[in-house]
Amino acid sequence: MKINGQHYRSVWPIGEDAFGIIDQTRLPHEFVTLTLRSAGQAAHAIRTMQTRGAPLIGAVGAYGLALAVRQDAGDDNIQQTLAMLEQTRPTAINLKWALWRMRGLLLNQPHGARAALAWAEAGRIADEDVAMSEAIGRSGLKIIEQVAAKKPGQPVNILTHCNAGWLATVDYGTALAPIYMAHDAGIALHVWVDETRPRGQGASLTAFELGSHGVPHAIVADNAGGHYMQQGLVDLVIVGTDRVTANGDVANKIGTYLKALAAHDNGVPFYVALPSSTIDWTLESGADIPIEERGADEVLKVTGRAAGGEIVTVDIAAPGSPAANPAFDVTPARLVTGLITERGICSATSEGLRALFPKA
Amino acid sequence: MKINGQHYRSVWPIGEDAFGIIDQTRLPHEFVTLTLRSAGQAAHAIRTMQTRGAPLIGAVGAYGLALAVRQDAGDDNIQQTLAMLEQTRPTAINLKWALWRMRGLLLNQPHGARAALAWAEAGRIADEDVAMSEAIGRSGLKIIEQVAAKKPGQPVNILTHCNAGWLATVDYGTALAPIYMAHDAGIALHVWVDETRPRGQGASLTAFELGSHGVPHAIVADNAGGHYMQQGLVDLVIVGTDRVTANGDVANKIGTYLKALAAHDNGVPFYVALPSSTIDWTLESGADIPIEERGADEVLKVTGRAAGGEIVTVDIAAPGSPAANPAFDVTPARLVTGLITERGICSATSEGLRALFPKA
Repeated sequence: MKINGQHYRSVWPIGEDAFGIIDQTRLPHEFVTLTLRSAGQAAHAIRTMQTRGAPLIGAVGAYGLALAVRQDAGDDNIQQTLAMLEQTRPTAINLKWALWRMRGLLLNQPHGARAALAWAEAGRIADEDVAMSEAIGRSGLKIIEQVAAKKPGQPVNILTHCNAGWLATVDYGTALAPIYMAHDAGIALHVWVDETRPRGQGASLTAFELGSHGVPHAIVADNAGGHYMQQGLVDLVIVGTDRVTANGDVANKIGTYLKALAAHDNGVPFYVALPSSTIDWTLESGADIPIEERGADEVLKVTGRAAGGEIVTVDIAAPGSPAANPAFDVTPARLVTGLITERGICSATSEGLRALFPKA
Repeated sequence: MKINGQHYRSVWPIGEDAFGIIDQTRLPHEFVTLTLRSAGQAAHAIRTMQTRGAPLIGAVGAYGLALAVRQDAGDDNIQQTLAMLEQTRPTAINLKWALWRMRGLLLNQPHGARAALAWAEAGRIADEDVAMSEAIGRSGLKIIEQVAAKKPGQPVNILTHCNAGWLATVDYGTALAPIYMAHDAGIALHVWVDETRPRGQGASLTAFELGSHGVPHAIVADNAGGHYMQQGLVDLVIVGTDRVTANGDVANKIGTYLKALAAHDNGVPFYVALPSSTIDWTLESGADIPIEERGADEVLKVTGRAAGGEIVTVDIAAPGSPAANPAFDVTPARLVTGLITERGICSATSEGLRALFPKA
């Protein structure tokens, strides 16, 4: 996607001994890129959410591991680096998927060949993610076209939660890919952007993306979506996911479950967009997904731009009050209308997933 | 309730030509009281939410009208002041209820007697609200006692949304009154305090109240409550309300509906606490309740205390992105386990309400 007319991916190689990312903790107020030169720097960037989004941290993890292999291509270093990177964020499965894909490729290869192989494979993971996002966009576009056909002359109202756009993937996005394609195809859209407390990825990242691309949208408090569904002002919900289990349960940013309940209660279709790297075939249901607990300060403090332009962090809560901060929740498959994948749309069931991905 | 050892109500008379309120927009960072000397000042304080909470703005409106009557006791002035005050906030019915109660009393009285009558009636409305809050507390305490009896040695986990404490009433509160009584009775409690974006009344006011009273609690993002219910970490939800219609539908702070859906989905009892002044017998269902739309800046900006101690407002969203800000939603009666009133607990049905309030 383009920033000020220049095309960016959200992760890119720099020579063969470094890679670049956008520091997403600085958005929307500042556009800053970072150069990462080691697996440790990659782990730090993932943990602090300078780079985030389930598909994206898979690619970043792969590049991080490739940098470690360049330093020391031995099995022990690969195993230890993999374990270090894997522990940075527990819920998204794409990180684990990418790291174990790298490991599987490398351990059978001669040490001298590993560095070049690892670098190429990280690039392949990134390229494949872009291709998957484009294919997800094409799959999801059909859903938006169907809704648009039923309300000629009126915009299709879509609600999304958190950020599942190009900043969460290598390019295009998952939930936002169909939205960009529909907008580019001339379909009138309006997107309700959930703020997504506590980190505000909707207000800061999704709104930034949609605004940059010219897609009409409005930021709303996370509390508002149910009301808009009751009022008939939401035609469709599309969200991303950090892990889908074999039965179709969906882990995604905290609060997704509440929107799925409201969609179900109001007959609003609720779709989840994902590359197949987000499917965890080893878990039977969402009850087994580890839910990351993040720091209380994400709830108790807010960072933004003050009137003078400086970036300031303020305390917003009653002094001395503690906070709790689960980062994800699990939406049961029964509340999901369908899964939008790079191979098309399927039901959120083991049968539906297996029909699209028989050999996975 | 006490602030630094001194007892405060949230509205109090000052002589007979002014009244005091706590400026709730300054909490939790500063405790500032305001002296209001006219109906216009009262309207401003209600509109800007320096004073808020459905029961409280009824009492504040009554004092405001009483000040206007002292200036000019004529019918026209009473009517015009009533209309001006009534328009400040459209959703809570208590304001309308208090103003029309004042009007009904005054219009049949000789002009010379009206000022004293109005002042006394405003005081009576405030005193009655305190008595109703105490009675609500006693009604709700029974529910908490029943839950506590089922889990000896473990705290009762209660989730609440927005602020329905003593700051939202004249004293004690509605949803929080049973919590204070249970805590004072030695029942172990833990309260999940919904932050309540966009204005953050949970993080700023409810947490302030609970912390001041020593009730264990944790602030959580509005997105988190559904997850906690799925995890079995919520025994009970208690919220306040701005208007209950004759069929038991409940208007309350935006986001309440989402928590009611999650409670229903997880078998968690969902109670609404209210004085009978919150019941709108003229509306058959919640679909007819006017929902206040507030300014976009409440979503796009956040005010808090910076590291140096100064109060700062920061932009948190992508520059140029618009926001929408509905302030309330309607929870259908089918999702409400019961209504906690000053006369006891009833089902959220017309039959339940009529059984407790046959003559209203």
